[in-house]
Amino acid sequence: MNTTRAHIHSQKFGIVRADRNKQRGHQSFVVWFTGLSGSGKSTLANGLEAALHSRGVSTYTLDGDNTRMGINKDLDFSDQGRKENIRRVAEIANLMVDSGTVVISSYISPFIADRENAKAIIGTEDFIEVFVDCPLEICEQRDVKGLYEKARANLISNFTGISSPFEAPVNGDITVQTHLTSLEDCLQKILIAIENKLQL
Amino acid sequence: MNTTRAHIHSQKFGIVRADRNKQRGHQSFVVWFTGLSGSGKSTLANGLEAALHSRGVSTYTLDGDNTRMGINKDLDFSDQGRKENIRRVAEIANLMVDSGTVVISSYISPFIADRENAKAIIGTEDFIEVFVDCPLEICEQRDVKGLYEKARANLISNFTGISSPFEAPVNGDITVQTHLTSLEDCLQKILIAIENKLQL
Repeated sequence: MNTTRAHIHSQKFGIVRADRNKQRGHQSFVVWFTGLSGSGKSTLANGLEAALHSRGVSTYTLDGDNTRMGINKDLDFSDQGRKENIRRVAEIANLMVDSGTVVISSYISPFIADRENAKAIIGTEDFIEVFVDCPLEICEQRDVKGLYEKARANLISNFTGISSPFEAPVNGDITVQTHLTSLEDCLQKILIAIENKLQL
Repeated sequence: MNTTRAHIHSQKFGIVRADRNKQRGHQSFVVWFTGLSGSGKSTLANGLEAALHSRGVSTYTLDGDNTRMGINKDLDFSDQGRKENIRRVAEIANLMVDSGTVVISSYISPFIADRENAKAIIGTEDFIEVFVDCPLEICEQRDVKGLYEKARANLISNFTGISSPFEAPVNGDITVQTHLTSLEDCLQKILIAIENKLQL
């Protein structure tokens, strides 16, 4: 790289989202996964990020692992804590979209009002909701993290599906059913649905 | 772009920062500007982003405009509010570095403890502190936003330099003096200092 003066003199000041999108060669937006614990959100998010990355798309996945331990470590799992959790994640996703990144978010996000708030923050045109529609019984059978067992034993409070409701999307953009369809077919459905959104 | 199955089958799951850095062709880190209101932080941040963008670097600028109105709109300018403001900004910057972006942050960030906390969140090796060292008298003369006049008239409380302290960096990475040096020379100094950091 080059640090000669010429590079500074010729600058246009005030780089904006359109400049960043042009640099990356694609539009930026948010793919928002919602669904029960164990429904397959993280697996789909990882798969989608890998698929997009391999095509040269700038991606980032926001999930509980990198936000509950960091920016949202001061929040609990009460309704108010969940609401603020989703608000902040939406604001971060919005900044990342502005930075030119396709953001994949993977949160249970059980309340319609909170997802609507996220959509309002990010902007309807940049918010693609993917409902990972898997029945509670199947999620509970999978119980990948052993959380349902603990929730049934009252060792975890406010657990979505057990002691706290999940409000399914009414008019979601995409629905995938991980108990009926293979991971690859679910990913394929999502990739086809977002294909046009990527185009500059 | 192509959405055939082949693109899914060949995926490595779990894209990490090193993958994103490789894709972008450069390392990611934070350039953290600190200094009084009117010292020239925003101008330098804009200039730095434009210079890096023109060289193909993925950049994003975090500043009060895009965070105080969004994710941090619930915070005031008390010491506690400022502390939480800087903590959240540091956490967002950290996520963006993970996403492969060179983050330019432009905040007065007057307290050493808060900047040290930001450095701890982001990681010492990814945090470059730039002290925009401009005397209060000059900043007050410039008074670009008319804020010093209001602060002197007690219309704004907790105003850094007037009614709230600014703790200058003791061992900052880079210092620029916008009252003595041209914008271009200040930018040149910063660009030279971060040159090695960009290399993969």
